Amino acid sequence: MTETRAESIDARIDSLARELSNWGRWGADDELGTLNLVTAEKRLEAARCVATGETISLALELRAGVPQAPRSPRLNPQHLMTETGTDAAARDRASGYSDDVLTMSVHAATHWDALAHVFHRGRMYNDRPCTEVTSAGANANSIVPVARRMATRGVLVDVARHHRVDALAADHEVTVAELEAALDGQRVELRAGDALLVRTGQLGRIAAAQAWSEYTESGDRLPLEPGIGADCLPWLREHDVAAVACDNWAVEHLGAGNPGRLPVHEVGIVHMGLLLGENFELDELAAACAADGRYDFLLAAAPLPVLGGVGGAVNPVAIR
Amino acid sequence: MTETRAESIDARIDSLARELSNWGRWGADDELGTLNLVTAEKRLEAARCVATGETISLALELRAGVPQAPRSPRLNPQHLMTETGTDAAARDRASGYSDDVLTMSVHAATHWDALAHVFHRGRMYNDRPCTEVTSAGANANSIVPVARRMATRGVLVDVARHHRVDALAADHEVTVAELEAALDGQRVELRAGDALLVRTGQLGRIAAAQAWSEYTESGDRLPLEPGIGADCLPWLREHDVAAVACDNWAVEHLGAGNPGRLPVHEVGIVHMGLLLGENFELDELAAACAADGRYDFLLAAAPLPVLGGVGGAVNPVAIR
Amino acid sequence: MTETRAESIDARIDSLARELSNWGRWGADDELGTLNLVTAEKRLEAARCVATGETISLALELRAGVPQAPRSPRLNPQHLMTETGTDAAARDRASGYSDDVLTMSVHAATHWDALAHVFHRGRMYNDRPCTEVTSAGANANSIVPVARRMATRGVLVDVARHHRVDALAADHEVTVAELEAALDGQRVELRAGDALLVRTGQLGRIAAAQAWSEYTESGDRLPLEPGIGADCLPWLREHDVAAVACDNWAVEHLGAGNPGRLPVHEVGIVHMGLLLGENFELDELAAACAADGRYDFLLAAAPLPVLGGVGGAVNPVAIR
Amino acid sequence: MTETRAESIDARIDSLARELSNWGRWGADDELGTLNLVTAEKRLEAARCVATGETISLALELRAGVPQAPRSPRLNPQHLMTETGTDAAARDRASGYSDDVLTMSVHAATHWDALAHVFHRGRMYNDRPCTEVTSAGANANSIVPVARRMATRGVLVDVARHHRVDALAADHEVTVAELEAALDGQRVELRAGDALLVRTGQLGRIAAAQAWSEYTESGDRLPLEPGIGADCLPWLREHDVAAVACDNWAVEHLGAGNPGRLPVHEVGIVHMGLLLGENFELDELAAACAADGRYDFLLAAAPLPVLGGVGGAVNPVAIR
Repeated sequence: MTETRAESIDARIDSLARELSNWGRWGADDELGTLNLVTAEKRLEAARCVATGETISLALELRAGVPQAPRSPRLNPQHLMTETGTDAAARDRASGYSDDVLTMSVHAATHWDALAHVFHRGRMYNDRPCTEVTSAGANANSIVPVARRMATRGVLVDVARHHRVDALAADHEVTVAELEAALDGQRVELRAGDALLVRTGQLGRIAAAQAWSEYTESGDRLPLEPGIGADCLPWLREHDVAAVACDNWAVEHLGAGNPGRLPVHEVGIVHMGLLLGENFELDELAAACAADGRYDFLLAAAPLPVLGGVGGAVNPVAIR
Repeated sequence: MTETRAESIDARIDSLARELSNWGRWGADDELGTLNLVTAEKRLEAARCVATGETISLALELRAGVPQAPRSPRLNPQHLMTETGTDAAARDRASGYSDDVLTMSVHAATHWDALAHVFHRGRMYNDRPCTEVTSAGANANSIVPVARRMATRGVLVDVARHHRVDALAADHEVTVAELEAALDGQRVELRAGDALLVRTGQLGRIAAAQAWSEYTESGDRLPLEPGIGADCLPWLREHDVAAVACDNWAVEHLGAGNPGRLPVHEVGIVHMGLLLGENFELDELAAACAADGRYDFLLAAAPLPVLGGVGGAVNPVAIR
Repeated sequence: MTETRAESIDARIDSLARELSNWGRWGADDELGTLNLVTAEKRLEAARCVATGETISLALELRAGVPQAPRSPRLNPQHLMTETGTDAAARDRASGYSDDVLTMSVHAATHWDALAHVFHRGRMYNDRPCTEVTSAGANANSIVPVARRMATRGVLVDVARHHRVDALAADHEVTVAELEAALDGQRVELRAGDALLVRTGQLGRIAAAQAWSEYTESGDRLPLEPGIGADCLPWLREHDVAAVACDNWAVEHLGAGNPGRLPVHEVGIVHMGLLLGENFELDELAAACAADGRYDFLLAAAPLPVLGGVGGAVNPVAIR
Repeated sequence: MTETRAESIDARIDSLARELSNWGRWGADDELGTLNLVTAEKRLEAARCVATGETISLALELRAGVPQAPRSPRLNPQHLMTETGTDAAARDRASGYSDDVLTMSVHAATHWDALAHVFHRGRMYNDRPCTEVTSAGANANSIVPVARRMATRGVLVDVARHHRVDALAADHEVTVAELEAALDGQRVELRAGDALLVRTGQLGRIAAAQAWSEYTESGDRLPLEPGIGADCLPWLREHDVAAVACDNWAVEHLGAGNPGRLPVHEVGIVHMGLLLGENFELDELAAACAADGRYDFLLAAAPLPVLGGVGGAVNPVAIR
């Protein structure tokens, strides 16, 4: 990357930040950001999307060794047993039980980013200083408010299917025009307060090839990844989308020569207060939507309420 | 406890096991148990319960030091930061982020028990040997099938309110008669496939008093706890309830002199394949139900899908 | 505590810091501090202290639930099995194995403090900024240099025995006069490069009474603790002691009304570069020394070399 | 591997087990095994080996990502900070501190195997049933007795140097003849109670090439590894060696087509009660020994005393 490119990304982020800021929009004390757009009425609308009662889980199974690349700073799930049936068998009593412990980076698998997850120029959402996030956790903008209300109408936009491919190329930047064309082709309307699920095919492609070493950050190296570009941010703001989730590592497009800047995170999370969801498994949902042509559903996706947490592990379920 | 009492509990469990067994009911390969009763139609019915779009989370906040008693064999949630805003502030770059790690016993806070969680006479649900649960996890009856489909109609039965108390006494055994009277007073019907949420007031009482040392197992000592008695099991089977969750540590009544036997677990989980949910926070939901007289709702409660997991940490949400 | 007292402790620490500083004494790049006093000749001297070949471990056994008080910010040792003999028994193969995982706060049990463990006015040992210690660990003054060389002559000074008590009172501040009198009574000479082990009896008293809730920090509350006072620091500097370890939580005396300041840590670690060892089990060693009147020995106490670690878990062994 | 080969290894192990068993040699209650050979006199002898006072640590630095291969069942060290200097800088108080947590498989880096680590035909050392090792840890043969006394005379035998190579080939089986020739060339005598450190050069070769994916077990695949063969066991028994440690993953030679049997572990640990040490870093020690021709030293290598532990993380130090 050239100096010029880093500078221009810097300027682009600053410009988008000014243009799209939601700081103060819901009051100086707000920690919900765009989740404010998910009202009770919105959830009623979401419940009315349920037509067959089918449920589809969008979560990666939690297992050792995936999805992080070997040199990722994040810890893949570790599942350890503290009591087992083999123990019980050796004891020869009438009854017994098993028990287990789970350790993982909160952002390791399917999760929402809390608004405390990203900083820009030393601030986080709603103009709070980043120093509010210490080793004791986030004093503000934690995942807890998300955990109490994340259920809304979900809309799948299947960009990979729009292009008639299993998965977009690793350097494909999804544009507003593609999102609009895909939604149009699916005959589904995007409305204020919706969670938009963008399917790139990336997670399915990686899983099929067991190519996890290409999927996430590894050491200091960002992966190549198809995803939405920064140019989608004004469109997301205009439509008052409440959340965006994607079947990739970082929601946003990561191209060659990226200077370590993530505009969708820096502007979306920090300035818009936009909820981002990562590592969502969208292939089964996409097949169901394609089969009956219904692309909206009730998305029940309330993460674990970790006090001070900067992310939310979740098993998002589409009820359709 | 006398020898006689241990023997009689033993015989009672064997008798109930024979009477109520669901082994083979849904085929020899089944790992879902009573979740088979949650059909697509059932979820449609559940979605139709949504009248105002209000969401109420039933999860305990995950935080250090609670809810386990100090000498519990289970690990309370531990939340550790791997990147912080204070780190970012010291670096002086345009952007930064925070990240975190969560460690906990899967059964530490609000969770479902997997069907691999309990054994009786060396077997678990559907006549599988308990040795299928090793240090590598459960080879069968794990939480994964639950994670893919746990959304159904929920019905709250507020036994504490029925008795006009904040919380039942610690040695109170909830009977079928009480459940029926409470449901009747609430004018709500229990149907096949429902998740029954039984409010005892125990969790609220303990939290208000910060009396966590009385709440869970500690060393080898079981707590005293109000909850449903073994006599409720035939009634649950007769109504084809899909799941029972409670605002206490173990769903079931634990009285003085308990010889370490848990009939609701041993018969319910092992022989009926019944899904049990523990440490559900029901006070806010109960207040909402009492306010408008509606006691049923869509319960979206899909746990994290841990491969081989014997429990499922979950943030259950009532959408009503 | 009154404002005045906090101010006077502040001034006392600043004054001692100026008086006793070793910053620059061993060069601007030094990360060893007083361990520079442990030379090869010193270790030869230590080896010559071995007279009978007896070994005594000074480590607390690592076990769940101790020694941290329930609300301590530190994690007691957690030992989890990942393979067991009960698993092996269920497999019926010719051979098998067991394996385990250990999680603990590095400072939870018997340990050395790294020079990166404490900061004073934003600096750590040898005038480095505290911001060198991030969520990624210590970039300087870590435990690694200690791990490579911690073997020297150890001298036990048994202050409890000097006072003919099993344990000093919880508010007892050990003075220079007591140290000198006790050493004199033991007929042992303190020399440059020695590790001084100060026995208060505190750990033995707590263990005997299982009074762990009084032993460590709990929430924000410091314990009461017998230990050396700040007035011992000039004497330690004068004798060029390389390390001080104690059978208590924090080496130093902690009295009622302590305003959260630890002068032995702030001056000793930060300004003198003095190695402090905590939770050393000294009762068995004391009994052996008293029995034959020999109070010096080879102390082999090299901690685990954790990259970036700010403490060193260790099993210190006295060979005498 | 052919059926025949598996059978013949099986028979060979049974035969060696009968021939070399130490079960009962030190009483029916013994849990020390060959550590019984390390007497006080032995340690006096060891202390007399100290000639210059030089210390050399034989431990791998504990760091993320090494030395386990990516798909190893063991957890590499994870070092997490719970308090940092960056936190302290943001607080602006006169003093501050940092703190950290370590998680690792006990056998992940440099360690001793406890006698409870390996089973043969359902038994462990001194004819105890393997079911004594449950999810709660080892009820017998744990690491704790080792932790209390592991200091003895160490002897380095540098087989790689004997062959004038940096490292032995990955399929090289070290024989008795080579051990004797190497010791002879080094002019050092092996005596009862010694710890024998066998240098193959494997760890140095792997580290230099950063070829960790070849170093340990990965999934179910054993690595190729130079090490001592089963034929060395009678010789070790004859010399009454107390411990054998090596700069490789498993002490013993692992060749192509290994049917998953480890005779040095199965006979050595289970039947002889022999202490095995793995992942010892021997290159620096070897250079020092070669430089002055002294190949014996005091080996201070007391592991952390984990209650019920089946291994012992350790920072072994040669004092010479």
